[in-house]
Amino acid sequence: MPPGDTPLPPHGPDIRPATGFPVVGMVGGGQLARMTQEAALALGVGLRVLAGGPSESAARGGGDIRWGAHDDPVAVAEFARGCDVVTFDHEHVPQPILAALAESGIPVRPGPAALAHAQDKVHMRAAISAAGVPCPAWAVVTSVGDVSRFAEEHGWPVVLKVSRGGYDGRGVWVVADVGQAGQVLASPVSPGVQWLVEQHVPFTRELAAQVARSPSGQVAVYPVVRTVQTDGICTEVVAPCPGLSDDHALAAQQVAVRIAEHLDVVGMLAVELFDTPEGVLVNELAMRPHNSGHWTIEGAVTSQFENHLRAVLDLPLGSPEARAPVTVMVNVLGGEHPDLYAAYRHVMARDPALKVHMYGKDVRPGRKVGHVTVHGHDLAALLARAHHAADYLTGVIDE
Amino acid sequence: MPPGDTPLPPHGPDIRPATGFPVVGMVGGGQLARMTQEAALALGVGLRVLAGGPSESAARGGGDIRWGAHDDPVAVAEFARGCDVVTFDHEHVPQPILAALAESGIPVRPGPAALAHAQDKVHMRAAISAAGVPCPAWAVVTSVGDVSRFAEEHGWPVVLKVSRGGYDGRGVWVVADVGQAGQVLASPVSPGVQWLVEQHVPFTRELAAQVARSPSGQVAVYPVVRTVQTDGICTEVVAPCPGLSDDHALAAQQVAVRIAEHLDVVGMLAVELFDTPEGVLVNELAMRPHNSGHWTIEGAVTSQFENHLRAVLDLPLGSPEARAPVTVMVNVLGGEHPDLYAAYRHVMARDPALKVHMYGKDVRPGRKVGHVTVHGHDLAALLARAHHAADYLTGVIDE
Repeated sequence: MPPGDTPLPPHGPDIRPATGFPVVGMVGGGQLARMTQEAALALGVGLRVLAGGPSESAARGGGDIRWGAHDDPVAVAEFARGCDVVTFDHEHVPQPILAALAESGIPVRPGPAALAHAQDKVHMRAAISAAGVPCPAWAVVTSVGDVSRFAEEHGWPVVLKVSRGGYDGRGVWVVADVGQAGQVLASPVSPGVQWLVEQHVPFTRELAAQVARSPSGQVAVYPVVRTVQTDGICTEVVAPCPGLSDDHALAAQQVAVRIAEHLDVVGMLAVELFDTPEGVLVNELAMRPHNSGHWTIEGAVTSQFENHLRAVLDLPLGSPEARAPVTVMVNVLGGEHPDLYAAYRHVMARDPALKVHMYGKDVRPGRKVGHVTVHGHDLAALLARAHHAADYLTGVIDE
Repeated sequence: MPPGDTPLPPHGPDIRPATGFPVVGMVGGGQLARMTQEAALALGVGLRVLAGGPSESAARGGGDIRWGAHDDPVAVAEFARGCDVVTFDHEHVPQPILAALAESGIPVRPGPAALAHAQDKVHMRAAISAAGVPCPAWAVVTSVGDVSRFAEEHGWPVVLKVSRGGYDGRGVWVVADVGQAGQVLASPVSPGVQWLVEQHVPFTRELAAQVARSPSGQVAVYPVVRTVQTDGICTEVVAPCPGLSDDHALAAQQVAVRIAEHLDVVGMLAVELFDTPEGVLVNELAMRPHNSGHWTIEGAVTSQFENHLRAVLDLPLGSPEARAPVTVMVNVLGGEHPDLYAAYRHVMARDPALKVHMYGKDVRPGRKVGHVTVHGHDLAALLARAHHAADYLTGVIDE
């Protein structure tokens, strides 16, 4: 439950899809659940969402919303009853709760063992290194001395990460020397959290490779995209990645498929990669629809949200083919202006072919509140259009 | 309220979009409201739906659903409070209720005067004839003698229609002679309903032209499509219409714009037309998203559902441009098999690029329960794929 100064309203009535159609339960009420709801409406399947409160993105959209926290065993168990399968809009559900769900006989997709790799970076690095997937050099460290020895071999700067709990750039530091490493390692961490050091990869660009995988083992592989991270948040995606060699594109897709199969991922898997002259290296994983795949709503034949539902329901997967030569997605971050709607008119009037997605969130500076997508032929023009719209909605430009 | 052997569950909690975002109220809980909900989720605007009960299509999808009948003045007035604008998924709200809403200060879009033309075919024919829009010859008749005199001028067969209450082919008869005309005219009709006779047009094909129009007067015009009606129900749409001359396409679009402006339509307007060697003639109108525009979800840059919302909110309209050389939509009608979901797997496995839309309705023979859409280059192949999928889902084929 949220800090709860106001009590939560009652749940709405039970919502049932048509006879014979399943109900998918999604734990987490963020924008991923909201966009999954769009796909569920079209597919005719039910989507029940466990949200923390009425101001969360998916709850703002309505639907079959239940209240409860993702780390409350009773709330999650109660939520799962009546669902045909349980899935997630984030990776934060604790393992004991996942295990209890799986034991109760309700299919959990992705399963607890797969999700463990998305919850713990040490676990993930160990598993994919063992599977022969190319990664930056890495090690678990407990002291500045460990970091120093790693840097002697791989060079400064190095990347320090906490094994659990970081996302959108939190929990990741690039450190240039022993002094900075000491400052970072002095940060307090929760019990069970380890420190990793990783090689700082001089990448050409960042990539993401997405696959959908079903329990039957079918895999659908999306085109590899170029991502831009700003302060650790994915802010721009170009699909397919411009100028990527066929070799590197295929290698990125093969890495994603190998990880999905090796870790037994069900649903969408996003693999964030560094592209380097020597090849691609895996940076991070996410086992759910992912920011790097929002372009698929307009840009692919089947969106990542629809394929996530089809995968967790063990339905045949939809075509991941790109629909346009280039699709550009740019995130809208909250700025200083609280009233996004006032900026709508301008953005829509300026660019009738732009697609604006708003998540129903109130504005806070730096918070992801929406995204815009455009598609066509001319990359430079598409980037200019998408960034103009996002900047205008954020309020950093006013014309 | 529905015949109500089971009492309706309580309403869900109030759902509010993000600060500054408006709530659109839509009267009617059918599949048009359900598909409008998908567009509202993406736009970030609120959509509140007045549905008759939990088994209606939009209620099955969830969202901000309120219970009540569209012809209950108290229910409609209560529903409208808290909405920033009220619109419709059908044309059946009685004029006194519309007038009371408009007087209460809540914007009603389209307005009562415009909607009157979608509610009464005599009113529509008179208005568009006065505006110089080409129509089949028509007349109000009260006797077999009137029909006979009309047929002497225009030839048998003729078309008899009730002025109000018919849709999906109901309330329309093609009669070949005086005897048949007498039988039809002997059918009981409700008070206020008139009989129209119309020329039976030997058309080349049926067309639909859709426009979105905002209160500011902006108009977005979709490509003209070819429609196929089966037993009066729109069952197949090809966009854009293959083989249509530029002259006739432009004429159809101009007719739709002229009607939208002349009748002051706000929101989506669909104009169904007959194409003839001599030009296009208006058959029917609908002032809402329409079956002939379902192809726009995947097939146009901006769907009819998004543009309906943008129009009734007086936001700038989105581009109606087609995204593919050909898009084909085929309706799925209920058949003998009640379990649509069982047919899903086959259809999805056979054609990963097919988009299936299911409306959350239980199956009844002949009832519209969904549609499928495919896009590409080869019309014959697209038609074969879409009809195969629809036939398989309906259950008329099993391989």
